[in-house]
Amino acid sequence: MAQEEVAEAAEAVEAVMTVAAPDTVFIFNTLLFLVMGMVVMFMAAGFCMLEAGSVRSKNVAAICLKNIGLYAIASIVVWLVGYNLIYGNADTPGGWIGTLSVWAQDDSAPLELGYASGSDWFFQMVFVATAASIVSGTLAERIRILPFFIFTVILTGFIYPVQASWEWGAGWLDANFGFSDFAGSTLVHATGGWAALAGALALGSRTGRFKEDGQPVAMFGSSMPLATLGTFILWLGWFGFNGGSQLALGSLDDSISVSNIFVNTNMAAATGCVTVIVLSMILKGKINLPMVLNGAIGGLVSITAEPLAPVVWHAALIGSVGGVLIYVVTPLLEKLQIDDVVGAIPAHLACGIWGTMIVPFSNSDATYGGQLVGVLANGAFVFGISLIIWFGLKFTIGIRSSEDEENIGLDLSETGHPGYEINPVVVPAE
Amino acid sequence: MAQEEVAEAAEAVEAVMTVAAPDTVFIFNTLLFLVMGMVVMFMAAGFCMLEAGSVRSKNVAAICLKNIGLYAIASIVVWLVGYNLIYGNADTPGGWIGTLSVWAQDDSAPLELGYASGSDWFFQMVFVATAASIVSGTLAERIRILPFFIFTVILTGFIYPVQASWEWGAGWLDANFGFSDFAGSTLVHATGGWAALAGALALGSRTGRFKEDGQPVAMFGSSMPLATLGTFILWLGWFGFNGGSQLALGSLDDSISVSNIFVNTNMAAATGCVTVIVLSMILKGKINLPMVLNGAIGGLVSITAEPLAPVVWHAALIGSVGGVLIYVVTPLLEKLQIDDVVGAIPAHLACGIWGTMIVPFSNSDATYGGQLVGVLANGAFVFGISLIIWFGLKFTIGIRSSEDEENIGLDLSETGHPGYEINPVVVPAE
Amino acid sequence: MAQEEVAEAAEAVEAVMTVAAPDTVFIFNTLLFLVMGMVVMFMAAGFCMLEAGSVRSKNVAAICLKNIGLYAIASIVVWLVGYNLIYGNADTPGGWIGTLSVWAQDDSAPLELGYASGSDWFFQMVFVATAASIVSGTLAERIRILPFFIFTVILTGFIYPVQASWEWGAGWLDANFGFSDFAGSTLVHATGGWAALAGALALGSRTGRFKEDGQPVAMFGSSMPLATLGTFILWLGWFGFNGGSQLALGSLDDSISVSNIFVNTNMAAATGCVTVIVLSMILKGKINLPMVLNGAIGGLVSITAEPLAPVVWHAALIGSVGGVLIYVVTPLLEKLQIDDVVGAIPAHLACGIWGTMIVPFSNSDATYGGQLVGVLANGAFVFGISLIIWFGLKFTIGIRSSEDEENIGLDLSETGHPGYEINPVVVPAE
Repeated sequence: MAQEEVAEAAEAVEAVMTVAAPDTVFIFNTLLFLVMGMVVMFMAAGFCMLEAGSVRSKNVAAICLKNIGLYAIASIVVWLVGYNLIYGNADTPGGWIGTLSVWAQDDSAPLELGYASGSDWFFQMVFVATAASIVSGTLAERIRILPFFIFTVILTGFIYPVQASWEWGAGWLDANFGFSDFAGSTLVHATGGWAALAGALALGSRTGRFKEDGQPVAMFGSSMPLATLGTFILWLGWFGFNGGSQLALGSLDDSISVSNIFVNTNMAAATGCVTVIVLSMILKGKINLPMVLNGAIGGLVSITAEPLAPVVWHAALIGSVGGVLIYVVTPLLEKLQIDDVVGAIPAHLACGIWGTMIVPFSNSDATYGGQLVGVLANGAFVFGISLIIWFGLKFTIGIRSSEDEENIGLDLSETGHPGYEINPVVVPAE
Repeated sequence: MAQEEVAEAAEAVEAVMTVAAPDTVFIFNTLLFLVMGMVVMFMAAGFCMLEAGSVRSKNVAAICLKNIGLYAIASIVVWLVGYNLIYGNADTPGGWIGTLSVWAQDDSAPLELGYASGSDWFFQMVFVATAASIVSGTLAERIRILPFFIFTVILTGFIYPVQASWEWGAGWLDANFGFSDFAGSTLVHATGGWAALAGALALGSRTGRFKEDGQPVAMFGSSMPLATLGTFILWLGWFGFNGGSQLALGSLDDSISVSNIFVNTNMAAATGCVTVIVLSMILKGKINLPMVLNGAIGGLVSITAEPLAPVVWHAALIGSVGGVLIYVVTPLLEKLQIDDVVGAIPAHLACGIWGTMIVPFSNSDATYGGQLVGVLANGAFVFGISLIIWFGLKFTIGIRSSEDEENIGLDLSETGHPGYEINPVVVPAE
Repeated sequence: MAQEEVAEAAEAVEAVMTVAAPDTVFIFNTLLFLVMGMVVMFMAAGFCMLEAGSVRSKNVAAICLKNIGLYAIASIVVWLVGYNLIYGNADTPGGWIGTLSVWAQDDSAPLELGYASGSDWFFQMVFVATAASIVSGTLAERIRILPFFIFTVILTGFIYPVQASWEWGAGWLDANFGFSDFAGSTLVHATGGWAALAGALALGSRTGRFKEDGQPVAMFGSSMPLATLGTFILWLGWFGFNGGSQLALGSLDDSISVSNIFVNTNMAAATGCVTVIVLSMILKGKINLPMVLNGAIGGLVSITAEPLAPVVWHAALIGSVGGVLIYVVTPLLEKLQIDDVVGAIPAHLACGIWGTMIVPFSNSDATYGGQLVGVLANGAFVFGISLIIWFGLKFTIGIRSSEDEENIGLDLSETGHPGYEINPVVVPAE
């Protein structure tokens, strides 16, 4: 081959070479799932800290047990049934449910799939765990551990997978209504919120939470630093939650998309947080920390249905409205005497619906009608089934601690172990 | 094409192919910003835990509120004005300030830029938040929330961006003096330290912190585990802080550089920490945990101006001197009756200056004169403006809680919510 | 070159291009070490939180000091001697010890090495720190700080490196017995466990831990949320611990392997955790949180020797047996009146041995005989040397606090600083 022909070949090579090699794309995609999956997994710790800091000190060990237990259960159940119930029918679109089978790796045609199948399982599994984490917060301080774990099995093995299959498993919602829910404002967060609301109705409020005239009585959480740490961990985890939901990293466009998702996710959290601060300052003079924390979470949930399409000020606005919702829905629930220990229903349900309904504002592929169908279908299914399960459990094994147990706290009654044992320290004079 | 010509072409291909394809380089660079940006973002939680653990239990909710609020504020302000005030004039070197404009993504020429613009914004934004985090620690337990947030807006929207533009925005300090500050010993940490010092002077010390004869009174932090957790999170985050400041990952050299930065960053933290342990053991017999934690932070700040050029023992030495500075400057500040709740001034200001001045020891591109100009210019500007702002706030809306409020604690006076509600548990005999 | 020849060349190019370019492979491998190394580094915080939450409130500052100190010491010692004692003879297989020399970067032939040398040092160093972290938990609440740090120097600078060199440094165990320990069930975890057991024997149990008739007295940890947080951090870190031990990411196969390791690691932790929950529920009616947390850790240690070869149900089974071991060995140790504050011996030693011995079940390259040789050699060496060191320290400088010091707690006696200072808050009626 003559010199000039080599040069031509090199040019041709360079032209092709702009693009990452297929293996490289595969590795990037896999790495996205693994790294983002890790921070989403860490959200389980975030929920745990948020909830441990928000419950009274006598119910702290019990809530920690529920949180680590639910993550472990979700891991096992998503392997045994959950994953394939979501994705098992993805090759025959329009269905109502996936297949009932144990998940196993399939890396027989890696470059066609585009990522390692195990990395995808890991990423999807931690999403299911997130939905279960939402429920534990609302029902804290009064639900017994066994019925909670039984519900967790059903939520992660049936409720979540079925409704997720409608959209992410290429089911009827995706096929027929153009429903759009990028990272799960509805499919994950509203799901958790509806299940929590059903549980709160079945369970009733904590003893003493409302006076006879219906006035709420403040019950202070055990540790605001832990609640704040939990919120920071959730904020961090949400970069993985939304960013990883791009599902690919191995191209210019994908990496730019993930970056823009990071920016929007952060911005919605920031405006949700600041909105609550400003509202509190102006309307009350004092700034309630738990509501500020929930403002950030509300902003995050709000942007989760569509973190990619919005320009930055859209994201800022969407998050800010999320903050307003936290500020408005929290006292509304109290008026209805629904006892939600960590404010999960305002954050995950109200903001989840808001985030889903506002998708068409920035993403013209979605329609308000299609979004409404998705929100209603998800709500009817998850809330309906959850009510049935919760009341079924209530009238069989029972779901609530006795009043005596509630008074001494679930830590001693359910775990036999105090959550804190911090004694006053007497420091000798120097 | 004959067989041998194909072989020749393949050889030519392989020769070119040693290097990563342009898209691949772009994705690596973007991924560096995103992953390292995430751990730097998490430093906000680290500062929050360090400060929550270091203040007395009655001021814990307030410090948590300040910390999550300042991160949210920084996010918004850096978007609206901060980013372009730093980088807006980077194409016309030698300036004093960037441009006043809202930041927006620009990915129109991706391969020329080399990374997704959103990923860069995210990485730079979390740096600004870090500077603001430093201030809250020094001023804890007595500053009111509103003036603190107002100062945060000014710090993140004006003070930090202007001085950062001098160097990282290709301004006069970069253009004329060869000033070198790799990841911000001066531009980030000393900036935070100077702003904190100005605030401490304007605010005065906590009631009861110094006896009439000037002797300091120890005020014990609420939770050493949280302070330690915060320090570990900062240590972790610093890998992102320094490693991400390489600003590129997509070549052999860049990835080797990031690795060496990890090694040096870790080593300086380790020697800073061990130096304080050894000094305490020898000189006092007891080892003060908060000072050991600050020793690690001091080592980290010290290596931040130049984490790449030093060989390992340079890094060890630089960090160790950082530890000595912590040990020496902390009591010095007490002598001056300057009340710095978490020791941020020794760690971020003293070690920030030390780290900046020692750059020429391992990096021959820098000069001691140029470094001094940068340190002085940064100090004069940040400390001067900060003093003006703090005293301006003091004589208008006021910056300090009343003595009554300080006595009951900022948690109840500013947030209406206790930071902890941990009741002694009586475990029944088995 | 004619049109069709260019097309042929392009085809040839594409065929080659499936594979990532050598630089790309190098960067992926390096990035794996850095990212996974970061989360393993964070395990130091995880151990610290687990231990701080598990000790009584009067020993909390001391355990935090030990944990951050040991990480800093490990960093320095692994640099000065540890790394080359492990890997210094890797080019002459079959040896008993590496070389005595200070580690320094060597990136002279990057593509031959396949990763940045600094990234590898970082990843290996955090492994050594992990072994040291295990020891501090067992010996908490009674060991003095100075002898603990001296032992840490010897453990990280001699004991760990020598036995690790036998396998990972291509020594005799690797060369002659086909011993297989993927990420260190034996080399890291059992090593820490044996050293802890030797220390516990030399040190004796906490005052009052066992009644005169040998019955154990429960001593409640200061904070279950911190213990739970620590466990979550360890679970997170283990993805890096096992996943990073693939040592490469830059090929299809490697990235699939890392993904499968993530799945198995998570599954073993989940089944370990759930197994303890189920056993507790059935056998005791109450669920002991610390043991559940240890169940997760036991599952993780069990899968560490071979996280790649098992199919998912193997991993689930291996982790589940780990949970059983926690449930069985913990009371057994109490019967023997061996006082292990955090249950590190059941988790790291018992499960470490179990995980190592079961490797041949899923990996046919290993033999039960070879595994046994490794387990015995590791145990004899680490336990023997540790006993000598601990008793040597005991009879020279002493290792245990006086009974008075133990009563007031190590926080005040060793650090002069209380671990918590949380005062009851009186919230005024609204």
